[in-house]
Amino acid sequence: MKVLVNNELQEREEVRVDIEDRGYQFGDGVYEVIRVYEGVPYTLDEHLARFYRSSQEIGITPNMNIEELKLKLLSLIEENELQDGGIYVQLSRGVAPRKHQYDVHIKPQLIAYPVPSKRPVKEQNEGVEAITADDLRWLRCDIKSLNLLYNIMIKQKAQEAGAFEGILVRDGNVTEGTSSNIFIIKDGTIYTHPAGNLILNGITRTKLLELFTSKGWAFKELAFSKETLLQADEVFMSSTTAEVVSITSIDGNPVGNGAPGTFTSDIREAFQESIESSIVPAF
Amino acid sequence: MKVLVNNELQEREEVRVDIEDRGYQFGDGVYEVIRVYEGVPYTLDEHLARFYRSSQEIGITPNMNIEELKLKLLSLIEENELQDGGIYVQLSRGVAPRKHQYDVHIKPQLIAYPVPSKRPVKEQNEGVEAITADDLRWLRCDIKSLNLLYNIMIKQKAQEAGAFEGILVRDGNVTEGTSSNIFIIKDGTIYTHPAGNLILNGITRTKLLELFTSKGWAFKELAFSKETLLQADEVFMSSTTAEVVSITSIDGNPVGNGAPGTFTSDIREAFQESIESSIVPAF
Repeated sequence: MKVLVNNELQEREEVRVDIEDRGYQFGDGVYEVIRVYEGVPYTLDEHLARFYRSSQEIGITPNMNIEELKLKLLSLIEENELQDGGIYVQLSRGVAPRKHQYDVHIKPQLIAYPVPSKRPVKEQNEGVEAITADDLRWLRCDIKSLNLLYNIMIKQKAQEAGAFEGILVRDGNVTEGTSSNIFIIKDGTIYTHPAGNLILNGITRTKLLELFTSKGWAFKELAFSKETLLQADEVFMSSTTAEVVSITSIDGNPVGNGAPGTFTSDIREAFQESIESSIVPAF
Repeated sequence: MKVLVNNELQEREEVRVDIEDRGYQFGDGVYEVIRVYEGVPYTLDEHLARFYRSSQEIGITPNMNIEELKLKLLSLIEENELQDGGIYVQLSRGVAPRKHQYDVHIKPQLIAYPVPSKRPVKEQNEGVEAITADDLRWLRCDIKSLNLLYNIMIKQKAQEAGAFEGILVRDGNVTEGTSSNIFIIKDGTIYTHPAGNLILNGITRTKLLELFTSKGWAFKELAFSKETLLQADEVFMSSTTAEVVSITSIDGNPVGNGAPGTFTSDIREAFQESIESSIVPAF
């Protein structure tokens, strides 16, 4: 497997990080995971725009511009003959003797490589269980940073409880999942937490909102409580890797009748159609 | 320079980390910085107890027990002939294909190596400037984790403003500095934020509280507001590397008369005496 390390492709086995890479000692960096379908990266521009925005928010200047990185990633996909999977791309502030403050001139370290990713067909068809947990994360969740400790703690807790995702609740309101956005459907209207500093504005989330508009489906970007979540007709999560997955049980309580909702199925199918239309050239 | 990598010492130049070390991709790990005076680690037991507690809180089981690690660190100090400096020790969850959830059986990765550290004599004598900033960190600041992004963002902001430290304020109250605990003195009583999930309970902080008790100096572990901070008679910070340093200016406003306070000087001297008495065998 080839890995993009700054400007060059290296063999996976040869790639190593220094112990004083600030990514390793401070989580001082940002990342993206981009889905590849049939060899074509989906919403690459949107992911790269967010990647550069995240970098800017924490004061890292990437060592190439967005168009250069785009070409490098396309070449990475090609060199690895990646058909169905994902690309993980990470930028850390660079290597320097350990101290909190940094020299703005240190050289950022970029890595990108293919990661396995498959449409979770079983979960999409059957729905998944979720648990809820307090959202104790920092208040800049809009930055897709390497500081993911709380996310993984709750994802692990969910997995250990036999669930697929942890739904985070801050000040009584549902914010998002540990690696997904959360939507509910109540009386025919779709609700999801508004973008801002409390959630990561998912690319899939954004694409879904565009889809709702084009389909004429009623939706509101509005915070809702945990109680409202538990009384929803349907609940689903969205993410780059999971796409749209019904949540049919929360903290052991069935959502609706406990089966994947029909509106959610319509949304998932419409989203998959929009993916397919984006990767097949339209003549 | 020799670096402790798990169970063995390696040359600094040879030590490398895998890109899928979870420390690098999630900040999934914990750390300590231990001060070494005259070749002797100061409060090593206390640092190691906190290190193992932090590990436990995030579900990492170190691959050696606390006594074994202690011996390894002592041998690291000896092999490097470290006299005056520090030891950085970090434990990550280990290397695994990237996904949020983890296999509890993956092997944790430990590294430890000497870092430069000197008593900041000029700052201690002259006092330093500080700025204040909103405390946007997660709500488990009691865990000394590698998720330090917000700390470094504010430390950098402080440095760029010509200040030495950033003082964090949550819900109107002073919690701590980006890499220190914060104390104020008002009408002869010393105040500092109570231990709990909102601060890291510094080893120096704990030692100072013991010192205050032994000296009969009045102190209270009590949250105080930013307004109270700005009206304090004296303000100081404490940390493993800085020890006790007067803060003589906050956001450009002088603390008291703008010179290091006499009570703070007494505290600093008493603390330095306690360090010296701990490293010189008492006959």
